[in-house]
Amino acid sequence: MDALTHASHRGRAPHIRLVEVGPRDGLQNEKSALPLEAKVAFVDALSETGVPEIETGAFVSAKAVPQMSDSLRVFQRIRRRPGVIYSALVPNERGLDEAVKAKADKIAVFTAASETFNRKNTNAGIQESLERFKPVVSRAKSLRMPVRGYISTAFVCPFEGAISPSKVVSLGLELLALGVDELAIGDTIGRAAPKDVRALLKPLLKEIPEKRLYFHFHDTYGLAIANLLTAYEEFNATGFDASAGGLGGCPFAPGAAGNVATEDAAFALEASGAKVDLDFGKLNAAENAIAPHLGHPFPARLAKVAARAAA
Amino acid sequence: MDALTHASHRGRAPHIRLVEVGPRDGLQNEKSALPLEAKVAFVDALSETGVPEIETGAFVSAKAVPQMSDSLRVFQRIRRRPGVIYSALVPNERGLDEAVKAKADKIAVFTAASETFNRKNTNAGIQESLERFKPVVSRAKSLRMPVRGYISTAFVCPFEGAISPSKVVSLGLELLALGVDELAIGDTIGRAAPKDVRALLKPLLKEIPEKRLYFHFHDTYGLAIANLLTAYEEFNATGFDASAGGLGGCPFAPGAAGNVATEDAAFALEASGAKVDLDFGKLNAAENAIAPHLGHPFPARLAKVAARAAA
Repeated sequence: MDALTHASHRGRAPHIRLVEVGPRDGLQNEKSALPLEAKVAFVDALSETGVPEIETGAFVSAKAVPQMSDSLRVFQRIRRRPGVIYSALVPNERGLDEAVKAKADKIAVFTAASETFNRKNTNAGIQESLERFKPVVSRAKSLRMPVRGYISTAFVCPFEGAISPSKVVSLGLELLALGVDELAIGDTIGRAAPKDVRALLKPLLKEIPEKRLYFHFHDTYGLAIANLLTAYEEFNATGFDASAGGLGGCPFAPGAAGNVATEDAAFALEASGAKVDLDFGKLNAAENAIAPHLGHPFPARLAKVAARAAA
Repeated sequence: MDALTHASHRGRAPHIRLVEVGPRDGLQNEKSALPLEAKVAFVDALSETGVPEIETGAFVSAKAVPQMSDSLRVFQRIRRRPGVIYSALVPNERGLDEAVKAKADKIAVFTAASETFNRKNTNAGIQESLERFKPVVSRAKSLRMPVRGYISTAFVCPFEGAISPSKVVSLGLELLALGVDELAIGDTIGRAAPKDVRALLKPLLKEIPEKRLYFHFHDTYGLAIANLLTAYEEFNATGFDASAGGLGGCPFAPGAAGNVATEDAAFALEASGAKVDLDFGKLNAAENAIAPHLGHPFPARLAKVAARAAA
């Protein structure tokens, strides 16, 4: 635990930087694409909840990810709320062209800490990914678009097993050196436990400032909230990705729980003394905008409490 | 954190004392009673999973809790596996008579840390409950039946709000003084966060030996695993109640997640370095024995991974 103890939060309420990834990481993992209208209504309702940033879509191959094929139209039809950042995932320069056309406020590039995972996911090795990002990042910078860099499988890879923390730290430093502004450190398959969070965050936070980091936990095995609170309570981490209702999933466990749910994350952080800008009722309204189009209930624990309270 | 740090677990794998409460605390919260055959098959299958103790039924008012009205027949028909403890909840001397007739190995009495909750739940004040337990506990002792004492709403009460840790500590000591062998400390409505676990466990473990304690978390708000790992990692707690599939619920949030799921708890504890006697495949088989009789899926995160793996 070193100098990082629970005591360090005492006396003030740390402000959480929450990124809502439901419209992208969430809906991308739904079996079928949602109607454009529902996506627009979802993003518009999410922008009323108080979250400062919404990952709104992705400019990726429509063949590989049909769920995101109408991202341009989503961006064109949403009602932009001043102060909210609407971001887009882009894999390459063509994706950046689309993001610019869509007037995305920010882009995100993605690679993985596991060579095997990255090859299976993007058909490229990690170094090859970084080469591909260079022109994307430099053009984004010249357009004054901030850039996020995702590092998937930062704890455990479904093919390679445990990932060495030093690998993640050096990859993170490489991304920052390329001009990436912030990193999203992903537990893609939800296999990390608090001890793994400690093993990575200890060296990571020695090299990279906390404000440049976001932690992206998945709840596949029920450990997301424990991991998130470990990052918050023991390391003062305040940047977290979350998905409304817990939308999303894990390609290696279809149907299982997905991203940590925005409401569960916010509840746990507030119950632990943090300040989270989130109106739970408005989040529930946003979920209601897409609920009829999903073939399943929301995995969020709080969504169930809310649903019953309303009934 | 004091002397209780993560380091204290290093170098050995602490052995978890898991109590499976699905057949009682789980099924008691189902909308309708399960068929006797299904209950017997469930308990028999659970006794194959490796868990050392199964709370098998309750000898309470059949009018108040119809789901448990056939507990005597469940006890009479199960196949007792040597080494497994089959326990029963009893509210009074009449309940103890039934438990003796059922050849229960152990009994559990129950009260709450919140006066209001106890009155609403049992129609008696806390002190009145303790008076009622006296003859039950003393007769159980003379019959060499171990006695568990439940303390509900040990963290937060739906009526009184936050419960003072000192109240729980003194009630625990009173129960032990009565002859109760062990305590189950319940977060009945699932509102505790890790900071509340720390606030109670610090004084509690100063007064009561760890081996006499079991922690009984509910996942209503998604905090059960974080709470359980806080108890394990920071306080070396090893006694936990859990319910197969996450069966159970919270009377104040019907339909919401219930007890922490046995598989999720075991997975989280093993991923954190503990030794848990649980065969996940056999637990899944036990769940399959009752799945057709439930009107809903299992809330457990791992049950979803398992269901999809099998499909």
